[in-house]
Amino acid sequence: MSGNSIGQNFVVTTFGESHGKALGCIIDGCPPGLMLNEADMQQDLDRRRPGTSRYTTARREADEVQILSGVFEGKTTGTSIGLVIQNTDQRSQDYSNIKDQFRPGHADYTYQQKYGLRDYRGGGRSSARETAMRVAAGAVAKKYLKQVHGIDIHGYLSALGPIEADKVDLAQVEQNAFFFPDADKLVALDDYMRDLKKSGDSIGAKVSVVATNVPVGLGEPVFDRLDADIAHALMGINAVKGVEIGDGFEVVNQKGSEHRDLMSPQGFASNHAGGILGGISSGQPIVAHIAMKPTSSISVPGESMTVQGEESEVVTKGRHDPCVGIRAVPIAEAMLAIVLMDHLLRHRAQNADVHSETPVIGMR
Amino acid sequence: MSGNSIGQNFVVTTFGESHGKALGCIIDGCPPGLMLNEADMQQDLDRRRPGTSRYTTARREADEVQILSGVFEGKTTGTSIGLVIQNTDQRSQDYSNIKDQFRPGHADYTYQQKYGLRDYRGGGRSSARETAMRVAAGAVAKKYLKQVHGIDIHGYLSALGPIEADKVDLAQVEQNAFFFPDADKLVALDDYMRDLKKSGDSIGAKVSVVATNVPVGLGEPVFDRLDADIAHALMGINAVKGVEIGDGFEVVNQKGSEHRDLMSPQGFASNHAGGILGGISSGQPIVAHIAMKPTSSISVPGESMTVQGEESEVVTKGRHDPCVGIRAVPIAEAMLAIVLMDHLLRHRAQNADVHSETPVIGMR
Amino acid sequence: MSGNSIGQNFVVTTFGESHGKALGCIIDGCPPGLMLNEADMQQDLDRRRPGTSRYTTARREADEVQILSGVFEGKTTGTSIGLVIQNTDQRSQDYSNIKDQFRPGHADYTYQQKYGLRDYRGGGRSSARETAMRVAAGAVAKKYLKQVHGIDIHGYLSALGPIEADKVDLAQVEQNAFFFPDADKLVALDDYMRDLKKSGDSIGAKVSVVATNVPVGLGEPVFDRLDADIAHALMGINAVKGVEIGDGFEVVNQKGSEHRDLMSPQGFASNHAGGILGGISSGQPIVAHIAMKPTSSISVPGESMTVQGEESEVVTKGRHDPCVGIRAVPIAEAMLAIVLMDHLLRHRAQNADVHSETPVIGMR
Amino acid sequence: MSGNSIGQNFVVTTFGESHGKALGCIIDGCPPGLMLNEADMQQDLDRRRPGTSRYTTARREADEVQILSGVFEGKTTGTSIGLVIQNTDQRSQDYSNIKDQFRPGHADYTYQQKYGLRDYRGGGRSSARETAMRVAAGAVAKKYLKQVHGIDIHGYLSALGPIEADKVDLAQVEQNAFFFPDADKLVALDDYMRDLKKSGDSIGAKVSVVATNVPVGLGEPVFDRLDADIAHALMGINAVKGVEIGDGFEVVNQKGSEHRDLMSPQGFASNHAGGILGGISSGQPIVAHIAMKPTSSISVPGESMTVQGEESEVVTKGRHDPCVGIRAVPIAEAMLAIVLMDHLLRHRAQNADVHSETPVIGMR
Repeated sequence: MSGNSIGQNFVVTTFGESHGKALGCIIDGCPPGLMLNEADMQQDLDRRRPGTSRYTTARREADEVQILSGVFEGKTTGTSIGLVIQNTDQRSQDYSNIKDQFRPGHADYTYQQKYGLRDYRGGGRSSARETAMRVAAGAVAKKYLKQVHGIDIHGYLSALGPIEADKVDLAQVEQNAFFFPDADKLVALDDYMRDLKKSGDSIGAKVSVVATNVPVGLGEPVFDRLDADIAHALMGINAVKGVEIGDGFEVVNQKGSEHRDLMSPQGFASNHAGGILGGISSGQPIVAHIAMKPTSSISVPGESMTVQGEESEVVTKGRHDPCVGIRAVPIAEAMLAIVLMDHLLRHRAQNADVHSETPVIGMR
Repeated sequence: MSGNSIGQNFVVTTFGESHGKALGCIIDGCPPGLMLNEADMQQDLDRRRPGTSRYTTARREADEVQILSGVFEGKTTGTSIGLVIQNTDQRSQDYSNIKDQFRPGHADYTYQQKYGLRDYRGGGRSSARETAMRVAAGAVAKKYLKQVHGIDIHGYLSALGPIEADKVDLAQVEQNAFFFPDADKLVALDDYMRDLKKSGDSIGAKVSVVATNVPVGLGEPVFDRLDADIAHALMGINAVKGVEIGDGFEVVNQKGSEHRDLMSPQGFASNHAGGILGGISSGQPIVAHIAMKPTSSISVPGESMTVQGEESEVVTKGRHDPCVGIRAVPIAEAMLAIVLMDHLLRHRAQNADVHSETPVIGMR
Repeated sequence: MSGNSIGQNFVVTTFGESHGKALGCIIDGCPPGLMLNEADMQQDLDRRRPGTSRYTTARREADEVQILSGVFEGKTTGTSIGLVIQNTDQRSQDYSNIKDQFRPGHADYTYQQKYGLRDYRGGGRSSARETAMRVAAGAVAKKYLKQVHGIDIHGYLSALGPIEADKVDLAQVEQNAFFFPDADKLVALDDYMRDLKKSGDSIGAKVSVVATNVPVGLGEPVFDRLDADIAHALMGINAVKGVEIGDGFEVVNQKGSEHRDLMSPQGFASNHAGGILGGISSGQPIVAHIAMKPTSSISVPGESMTVQGEESEVVTKGRHDPCVGIRAVPIAEAMLAIVLMDHLLRHRAQNADVHSETPVIGMR
Repeated sequence: MSGNSIGQNFVVTTFGESHGKALGCIIDGCPPGLMLNEADMQQDLDRRRPGTSRYTTARREADEVQILSGVFEGKTTGTSIGLVIQNTDQRSQDYSNIKDQFRPGHADYTYQQKYGLRDYRGGGRSSARETAMRVAAGAVAKKYLKQVHGIDIHGYLSALGPIEADKVDLAQVEQNAFFFPDADKLVALDDYMRDLKKSGDSIGAKVSVVATNVPVGLGEPVFDRLDADIAHALMGINAVKGVEIGDGFEVVNQKGSEHRDLMSPQGFASNHAGGILGGISSGQPIVAHIAMKPTSSISVPGESMTVQGEESEVVTKGRHDPCVGIRAVPIAEAMLAIVLMDHLLRHRAQNADVHSETPVIGMR
């Protein structure tokens, strides 16, 4: 594989550049008989869509997804599902100034060296615009997981720079433009972002995503553990620099007697593990956190280099999110959904005959 | 795939249980002509080997690896390399007490539910003993990377519970039983571990691994980014709960103007990115950190459940590491080597014709 | 994978039904820097296109392919290439009569049982219409193979029912609507097809495909031999029931002294092997033959069954090729090109360092 | 992948050279709970084993397989199964004469050019000895298929050179050293082989393999059709030059009205399709045929070339089968079993929810 596919049984392959004609993907392995239409995907696409608030890029894209195959009379047929989104608001001229030089902190230099040429318009394939198709594919997985197994997946912004959520109120998340779960911090967020935009700088963020009602048994030892594949999927989102499962880096200073989740016929007493034991889902909620770096597309001048290897100074014009973490929330949900969907199908393949005497437990 | 393989062009597939007859692996895709013998692997195996210090399990295993195929007259032939390590010191009786109940924080429960049965002897396939074959396979990758590209891979213990390394002296790492890079903390570590063993408890740790001289261009957008595959490989190590690339979770509170690594014809001015931009290696050192949970195999009693679903109390006997992070250092090195090797071969496949006009830069 | 992808380093994934909105594919792994535009694909698409002669289906499709991504300023960028062909002439009403019953010899029954539902319009995903995208993807592989390695791939119809080619004149192949290499048989073919259409029946065919200038060394032992992957790719074409490499089934009654191709510094003396030894290309021309069954879409009534399981009689209306073998010629070329392209990239990955002292030989 | 693995959900990866220390394989994806021991594999290994009759090589190998992992208390655990067979009767000196020259019709030349070096002892990795592990892995698949689905797989020699079986009596197959289904031809076979050995030459053969009770629905459109994967698996057996499904090359001169298998609620009226429609199993018996070339290891002198590129003459000494087709019977059965097993698991992954109203039919 050359890297544009993810999954083994539920396989998502994407194409498309920031300023190309269209974005698209193929979903291969979706079970037949699932009711599916464009609206099922549009809802999440709209959550990720640019131009929806003054905290995100001013680029306006309808991001209207079209189903080209794999659905007949409203139901998936089991054959490959082709999806496409036409690009509409490209304004390539914004990017002509970066044609011959590399933006520090961007993929410009690495693409140039790997491929010998690059589509410099808006970052081409390295643009976060590509994630629109992940969100569309993730919505298909989400719908199947919810309908067939009652699995819920919810993400939220747990920190924006110095501002952390002190409480997590999921009902609040969809009520504000930050996907922030703590209403008491909304004013602070608003002030912070205003000052940030004035300074022309950007800021990092922490995004959390949780899946509930995940059946016990998903995940394949030893390399394709559920946590390993979640880490792969989440670290593969643009700008992510860290992934945690459950307590994550807090475990460094935990004792075994603190960390281990005690269990009884009534269920697990805690969830330090984040829902995964030995790489296999335990029935506890699956909890993951990711660190999103601040975008390097800022109007603060920066030392750089030209394609020919001369010194230069870069000031990124164009339209950019001051905090890419905000729009990463639906993307993280989508990636977790794709991984769970893939492992659900993988689990079935090998373990269809399994009958365990042991009662299934959840959280107390 | 059912999860016991990693890689696409340099593929490592392992087998073996903690108390089975033997551990083994197949390396498929090693280039021909590499000088290789058992000693090349034994060195790293000895670094991971149990029973080498009073800080690790008392289990004694020679961990002698044998090459069964793929090497002829001292050179790899390009065909699949079969490796095997016989198990010698099993003492299964130590584990009879956990046959009918689940150890909290272990994979016992999830394996039972996934497969309907489990090899309870020492955790069977879920035991960290399986990582011996990863270290052997990683040593092959390390040798090739070093010989053909001058790539160096070094790991160390950056924190053990509350004790963090204030300085990183790689020369020091192999001089102590902790793989610790800060000699000033060795006495503190010694005291801490003595008290810990007395208490019968365990502690978490942080492990860091660095690769230098990695050529620019390794990594495949969009899903198989180099950082995504490193996250997959490192999160797939037993007991890992978090993975960071470069600044990792520190980016949450960084500004774009702080984080981005400025560049010039003289090289990169900093390495907040940890050597990866847009999922592709930049030529900067690749830096990753992992969080290792404290082992749940402790003699502190814990509430649990039997296979039949009744309440029980578990006290883990047997021989265990109070800090599994220590022996994880060579494992993390091996996994990073395997990922880099795989991506080096993948990169060649597609990009053999590429010639870039842009000069390659490193760190200033 | 769920089966809609082929290849490991040059990966082609397709979607689309006979009467859906569009057909499409993603090519993942095409090297960067290849000059590519729609015209490069259109030529082969036109050779496969229906409605071009009175010997093929009357369905008229422009089969105009559009590049949606992966090409910038006329060159491939190394990122995934998205291709789409809109369906135009669908006339679904032709197929309403088969909605509730199964056409004998077709995939109707197996799709119904596998998926529980099916897109019955023109066979949906099982229609040979899907092969249009294979031809488009194959054209990309063909162009790269020709440009970078001088590899030529040519197919022809070696037999149509009882009429076999007595000589193979490649210059003749593109001069007639049958892709037939023996001009002396054209009148006989014409007469045969006229009578066949009158009878409302169909006929089988044999297609041959040859690749020249293939470098020695392509193919991976032991399972992914070049001949094994060619067999996989060619048997995967609709209606193919047999695949031969070189002498094929003639070897059953050959002696070792007859079959083996003697060799000398001047080259191979013969090519019974069809260009592959031990699963690896030898530098001799690669020669493969396929058997194409007669289409089951005929107007001769046939005993069948309804979806509900009652007896019925089927007469296939609609527009069909009396000999699907004719249009299979460009498809077979495309599949061979895709396999060679994939193996060329695979070979590079592992064997970039290889230097052999032995001189390369071809045919004498 | 570098080619030593087959399958996606039931994955078999092999290693080992003809004259190396051992052969081995890893089976990844075998469902848990299957009763399994060495004897289950030994039976088929003995059928393939050399030195069992005067018609096969005189090399004597016990071919005793050992299970190293994946089985606990007599049952598969769902983890990877490690198998190994020690080589015992190597007599490398037999092969010293081919160290510096290439045997015509063998892989010597292609391996040398691909890898730059080769294990010349008995052909190294290219030796049919490697197939022992396929037979072992196939026996595991066979046992599961039989036990869980009642699927039977039987192979036989349908032709040895000019001598064809006029009738197929499966009960007869295991009664003679030729796996021949027609007792009336045994004397003729005996005479033919005696003369052949005198002449120092070898002969080709045709092998047939049949699977009955295969459920409808196995196979994944469009590239991983069941017939395509069977062709891949069978063409991947050493010395195979052709693969047929059902009527195979006879379809070239069949009419649609002859070929299509009529169907009714009572079942299929015929089986020209060989049990596969549109790449998916139909419930009819699956029938495949392969053409085996005569081995090139004969004592008839042949023109060849040295590693340095000089002219030479080769006379293959050593111990060889005059007809490799004979021992290919259990190998073909094993490969078909592995493919069916893999597709059975793949089918489950995506289609676990499917319920079809249509009654399942078999043959009348």
